Parts: sequence; structure tokens; C-alpha cells
Amino acid sequence: MGKTSFKKIAPDDIAYFKKLLGDSYVSIDPEQLARCAHDETEDLHYMPEVVLQPATVEEVSAVMKYCNEQLIPVTPRGAGTGLSGGALPVMGGVVLDMKRFNKILKADKENFQVVTEPGVITQELQEQLKAQGLFYPPDPASKGSCFIGGNVSENSGGPRAVKYGVVKDYVLNIEMVLPGGEVIWTGANVLKNATGYNLTQLVVGSEGTLGIITKIVLRLIPAVQHDLLMLVPFRSAIDACRAVNEIFLAGYTPSALEFMERDALEWTMRYVQATGISLPDDIQAHLLIEVDGNKQEQLYEEMEAISAIMQRFDTGEILFADSHEQKQMLWALRRKVGEAVKSNSIYKEEDTVVPRASLPQLLETVKRIGREYGFTSVCYGHAGDGNLHVNIVKGDMSDADWQNKLPQAIRVLFKEVVAMGGTISGEHGIGFVQKHYMDIAFNDIQVGLMRKIKDVFDPRGILNPGKVFVN
Amino acid sequence: MGKTSFKKIAPDDIAYFKKLLGDSYVSIDPEQLARCAHDETEDLHYMPEVVLQPATVEEVSAVMKYCNEQLIPVTPRGAGTGLSGGALPVMGGVVLDMKRFNKILKADKENFQVVTEPGVITQELQEQLKAQGLFYPPDPASKGSCFIGGNVSENSGGPRAVKYGVVKDYVLNIEMVLPGGEVIWTGANVLKNATGYNLTQLVVGSEGTLGIITKIVLRLIPAVQHDLLMLVPFRSAIDACRAVNEIFLAGYTPSALEFMERDALEWTMRYVQATGISLPDDIQAHLLIEVDGNKQEQLYEEMEAISAIMQRFDTGEILFADSHEQKQMLWALRRKVGEAVKSNSIYKEEDTVVPRASLPQLLETVKRIGREYGFTSVCYGHAGDGNLHVNIVKGDMSDADWQNKLPQAIRVLFKEVVAMGGTISGEHGIGFVQKHYMDIAFNDIQVGLMRKIKDVFDPRGILNPGKVFVN
Repeated sequence: MGKTSFKKIAPDDIAYFKKLLGDSYVSIDPEQLARCAHDETEDLHYMPEVVLQPATVEEVSAVMKYCNEQLIPVTPRGAGTGLSGGALPVMGGVVLDMKRFNKILKADKENFQVVTEPGVITQELQEQLKAQGLFYPPDPASKGSCFIGGNVSENSGGPRAVKYGVVKDYVLNIEMVLPGGEVIWTGANVLKNATGYNLTQLVVGSEGTLGIITKIVLRLIPAVQHDLLMLVPFRSAIDACRAVNEIFLAGYTPSALEFMERDALEWTMRYVQATGISLPDDIQAHLLIEVDGNKQEQLYEEMEAISAIMQRFDTGEILFADSHEQKQMLWALRRKVGEAVKSNSIYKEEDTVVPRASLPQLLETVKRIGREYGFTSVCYGHAGDGNLHVNIVKGDMSDADWQNKLPQAIRVLFKEVVAMGGTISGEHGIGFVQKHYMDIAFNDIQVGLMRKIKDVFDPRGILNPGKVFVN
Repeated sequence: MGKTSFKKIAPDDIAYFKKLLGDSYVSIDPEQLARCAHDETEDLHYMPEVVLQPATVEEVSAVMKYCNEQLIPVTPRGAGTGLSGGALPVMGGVVLDMKRFNKILKADKENFQVVTEPGVITQELQEQLKAQGLFYPPDPASKGSCFIGGNVSENSGGPRAVKYGVVKDYVLNIEMVLPGGEVIWTGANVLKNATGYNLTQLVVGSEGTLGIITKIVLRLIPAVQHDLLMLVPFRSAIDACRAVNEIFLAGYTPSALEFMERDALEWTMRYVQATGISLPDDIQAHLLIEVDGNKQEQLYEEMEAISAIMQRFDTGEILFADSHEQKQMLWALRRKVGEAVKSNSIYKEEDTVVPRASLPQLLETVKRIGREYGFTSVCYGHAGDGNLHVNIVKGDMSDADWQNKLPQAIRVLFKEVVAMGGTISGEHGIGFVQKHYMDIAFNDIQVGLMRKIKDVFDPRGILNPGKVFVN
């Protein structure tokens, strides 16, 4: 795929696209191109040659057919909130901006399903469903701005994954346009399916490299009525990681179990100018723990039992959120950690995931490698899933070391993660920035199978080139 | 794949296999061949040329490498309980009998995971895990004899799927041998994974056509402590189907919600010589409903609420199972329905699945098509998932009609199922007997993608040939 000589877009192509989509939805305006040149991954920018905004599956099909014939690279784009560079048009060409696919087509209360277009904002989808007593759990930190289509493409997670699973656990069926323009459904709108290969699950998390998603059928569950939230301070970050597993061993499954190192919380409090949370000097990390269900009294019991487990460790004073506002504030803090840490320094974010009981070992490993290679890190993430976001901050590291030594350090870290039974991305995807580490998670045989699957769907290699695979 | 000229097995091949595995594990004994000539699918028999019983991944690898070079077809076999003919060696050649892969390698209580070989009986796996407070929910009717490896290959379901999901929802990682002999893992031992394509989910349900499964890593959940069971008789089978959805709309998710037509229960009671259940003449169907959880009093509340919902319909007297023995007896009845119906007549079993709210429409459709084509049917299955097993009984149908008209009738039924948003197999797989109907669920483009994926894994087409695809 890397060897393909893509065609540069010419005025004829622009004219063709305008005829197809209308003038308003074909843009070579520098501001539009610049908007689609980046996502939320570091400070990376790659300019596309044109931005197309189709609104129907027929339009997507016609665009793909043309680009496939002409060998024009196509990079699909959701809301551009990705953290692995999946939406970067690294080979130029077309950005296929899916924002006009913004309709929830059918909320099927009878069957606990929804049919949606991919350009719907995840939180809006959740809120519209909730108003009808329906619940779509996956809640990436960017839920207020990300698109459900991007979530499906990246197999996103979020805090609730620990109890409710990730996006893949909710996708029943996908309508997609293949690079040659053919439109298919990947499965059926059923809870159980043993009919042929599971194309649906192959497409979920394939990062826009196999086809353009145009409709999604999601399984839903009944809305949950109550939740309780607490913030537990620990004097040792390793202790906080150790405490995580004790909750599960005692038989409890919180609806969120988030870990934040001291710096993560402190920087975020400053970033959002939060007040009302005290952060004593001796506190090194926090766990944010939520339980949910339909019986309030049972939730109080669970919270008490969990706080008793926490107090076996060296904890500070536990904060029980006692109002909707306080819950909102704590969640806002957690959701803003990524932004806050990033605003503080040049950074690189890793998305390590290990079997849950290895979380203390993972944190120790991160810190040890940091000492060896001279970087500092701020760690936070979905501890209940063993998913730790490692934000490496440039701080005092020289530009040369940042360029040369850091990738070595990351390789060492990833190798240790894989040796623990883990892998290099839990929810952000491989995209553009992690592809050079794929060889740590998968050998040539495994990657070879994946590449050949890519070729089955996209034989001319026009779809989101430069992603997942090295070349 | 259908065009491959496979090699017939010669004395040289047998000698090679004996050198590799030892004399005891290479059999051309007619009794052994006959044992591996069938599974539980109708009365189909296809004799293999040799049965091999490897015990290590290295042995499987060596066998596959040899067969791939020699173009000898290989059909993997678990416990032979399949219902779509997936284990039938329809092209002769090698049956790879996996019964010696019978060890649970590691029950990892810390991480709620288990690493198991594929030849472990599902119920034994569940019981050994339960003794350690761990729960692996999927429970196909054949759980007392089927292998976990076969369950993974077929993406099996079972009664608990309605609350806990099917096999695919528990498989984290698979060790498999590719047809060329290469050994790979498909993923990692983690709860969240956004690293490359999801090979794990591609292999689950691929019916032994992509590789030989040699190890499986399953996600587990904490053991559940209590359950309650009730049997609800209905004077109308359609009413019973309608009642199903009302339970979910009221916000309840039973741990089992099974439907049985009158004949299914009556024949099974006779088959197992059950007493203690009265079956008044006016009862046409039953729902078997289980709820489970850790709070007994909450379960009683749920049972009461559900029975109140049931009584909005024209029901008979509800039987609440009040002892462990009575629960066992009711479940034994449900699990024996398949066998009982099959012992009663020549039959053909379909495994239709539709969005749950369409269940009454599905049952009506089955009966209408039966009247049009002159067959009778006994329906039962996992109503909570919209998964209805349609047992077509030959009864008075002529042999000619059975051969010629019945396949037409099944095509008509499947087309209506697909039009309802459903598909042709919920949990039994396509295997050998349903492949001629795949064109109803998937068009040429979809099947073309699947075939090419098959070629990626198995370019010489030696692995379980004659399955899933027509040729």
C-alpha cells in the first residue's frame, strides 16, 4: 500500500466532485483544509487536497468509486477527536468529512436498538436515547464532541467500559461503503448471529481502513436510574493501583473505576479553575469510583463496602459526591485530565492496557523506564480495565532526546506491557502515531494476516493509507 | 476451494502421522472412523480416511504443515455435538480429533480469566471455575458433553445469552495453528483492545475454517449466588411470544427466557418420563423464566413483577420451582427438547433469529409456511434473544416433498426472517447443512469478502473444506 503512486487532485477532479455533491460541499478553502489537517493527536498536521462533505450513502459510493478508479487517497473524518492520528490525511488527497451524516434514524424502543448515522455526537445520541428510557453506555472522555462513527472506527472505551464493555459490545450491524463503491451491511439486527464470518466485529476498530461507515445499528439496554460517586485519595500511587483489584475480588463491579496520579488532578484543577477539592501534600493519587443501579439502598451498601476495602490501604479522607453538581464537577475534572496535561507541556500519550491485576506492576514499570530514560510521566486512566494512559511530558528533556531516546523508551515500555499479557492500545487505536510499534504487539505472521485482510477490502489501497501498517 | 483436487491418504501418509503422533493416536480403525463420521446434525455420515489425535500445539502444527503441503483436507472435531454439520469430514481426509487438548491451563482468579485447551467439556469448565467463585456463563443445551473449543468455533449461545451474551462476548484471545503450520495468538489477555484488526472476533464463529484452536483465554465474571425459576403456561403460543417483549419493556432482564411449544414439552416429558408437571389440554406453549443475582429478596420482587406481567395474558397456573431438584428437572426438560423432538420423527432443525419484538411474527410465519407447504413444526428456543429453533418434522410428508418442496419452504422462511432484520443462524452456525441458504443472508459482495478472508488464512483450502461456502 505504501508503494502506491497516488494521483494528485486536479481541477477536473474538483469539477467532478462539485457535480456530484454540489459546490457547497466540495472545499479547497485553506481554512477548511487546515481544519481537516489535524485531530487531537499531539501537534500533527497534514493538509488534504480537498474536503468533501457527502450526505447520502449514494454520494459516498460515487466518491469512493471515482477515487478508487483514479487512485486518489481518501481519509474518512468524524469529529477529529482521535488520539492516534487516524483521521490525519497523511497522503493528502480527499478528506471525507462525515458531519452531514448527523441523523438518528430510528430509536427502536421495542427492540432496544438504535439505527444511527455516524456523524451524530455520542453524548447527543446518549441523551436522546435516555429520554426514551434507553441506555447506550460507552462514554469516551470526548463524548461531548466526538462522533459515534469515530467511536465505532476506533472501538472506543471510556469509564463505563469496566461494567458495560466497549463499543464493540454494542455494535450489531454496520452499513458501509467499500473502496470500490459497493454498499454492504456487515451482519443483521439481532442479538445472536452465527451466520458466516463476523464482518461487523472486523470493521469495528478497523480505523477507517476497510470501508466508510454510513449507518450503525447499536444494541441498547434499559436506562439505569441511580448512581453514586466517590473520590478516594491515596498516599501511594502504587497502593491505589493495588486497591483496584481488591474491589473485583470482593465481588463488586463499579460502573467506573478511574485512576489519576496527583499531577493529573492538580493540573486539571488549575486548568478548569476548580475549587472545593482539597489536595493535601501527602496525596499521590486518587481513585474515582462510581456504582450504578436501580436500587438506591443497594448502591449505598456497595459504596460502604467498597470504601471499607479502600480503607485497608493508606488513604486520605474519602469524598462522597452528595449532589448532582458535585458529581458533574468530579466527572468534568476527570474528563478534562487529558486536555489539562496536554496544555501543560509538549507530550506524548500512550494507551497501555494489561490484565487488571498487573496494574501496579505497569505503573512501576512506567516510572522505572522514565528514570532510566530521563522523562517524567503523568498517568491516569481506566484502572478497572487495566487501561493506563501514560502521558509522557517533555519537561526538561532535550529536543534530541525527545526525538531519539524517547521512541526507544516507548519500545521498552511496550515490550514489558506485552510481556505482562497486555497490548499497546486499549482504546485509542494504532492510527498513524503507533504503527511503528505494531511489531511489538504482533509478529510478521499476524500483521501479514491483517494486511491481507486490508487488501481484501481495499485492493488498491486508497482508503486511509498510512494507517495501522508501517507501509 | 471446491475445485481443489485433494490427495487421497496413502500408507506413506499414515506412516508419517504415526511417526509424528505415535501409533496410538493415528487410527484407521473402522469404528473410530465411523465415530468421527457424524455429529448431531440430522442423520448425516461422511467417513474420514484417518483420525488423528494430537496432544500438543507442536503436533497440530506439524500435521497441518504436512497436510497443507500434501493437499490433504483436515476437519477439526470437538465433541461432535454440532447441529450444522461443521465437524463432518465431507471431503474425507483427516479428522483432527481435539479430545486430548483437555486441560484447563490456568484459572486466573486475580484477573477473572481462564486459559483453557479447547477439548475441555463446557460444563466441567464451568463447574471447576464456579468452585473458585468464577463464572463463565454461556451454556449451550449440550453443555454436559460439548467442548469449549467447539463452542468458540460456532459462537454458541444457550439460555443465559439473554442476560450474559454469547461465547464471543467472553473470548479475549486465541492460540491457533494456521493451515500452513504457523502458530499465532489472535489478540491479548486484556478487557479492551484497540490494536490492529480484531482477529479474535473473526476466528470466533468461523467454524474451524480459518485455523485450529489450541488455547483459549476467556473473560470471567464473579459467580452469581441465587436464581429463581418459573414455568408459565399460555393458552396461545403467539401470546407467549408477545409476553416475552413485555418483560424487557418493563425493565427486567431475566437470566433465561425460553419458549416451548406444547408438543416440545409434551414429547420431552414422555421422552424423559417426567412426572409432576401437569399439561392441561388447553395449554399451547410455555415460557421458562429464570432470574439470577446476589440478593434473594430482590429476585423474589422481580419474579413477582414478571409473573404479574405474564398474567396480563391468558395464562394457566404458573409453576414456581421451589427446590433445587425442581429447577434441575425443569432445566433437564428444556435441555432435552432437541433430542426428544428428534427421536420422534425424521426432522430438520432451523435456527432462525429475529429482533426480539418480531418473535410473534416469526412464529406466525413459520406456521403459515408450514400450512402452505404441508409440514408441521415444533418450535422452541431462546425467546429472550429472538432465537427460535424451528424443528420441521417429516410426519406424513412424502419423501419426494421432503427432498424437493421442503428446501423451497425453508428458503421462503429464511427470506422472511431476513426481511424482519433477522438472519438464518443465531447459534448453530452455517457449517455444511445451511451453506446453500447463505445467499439469502448475504449477497455476492458480502460472501465474496468472506471467501477472500478464508483464502487469506487458508490459501490452499485444506481446512474444513465444504463448509460455510457453497464451493
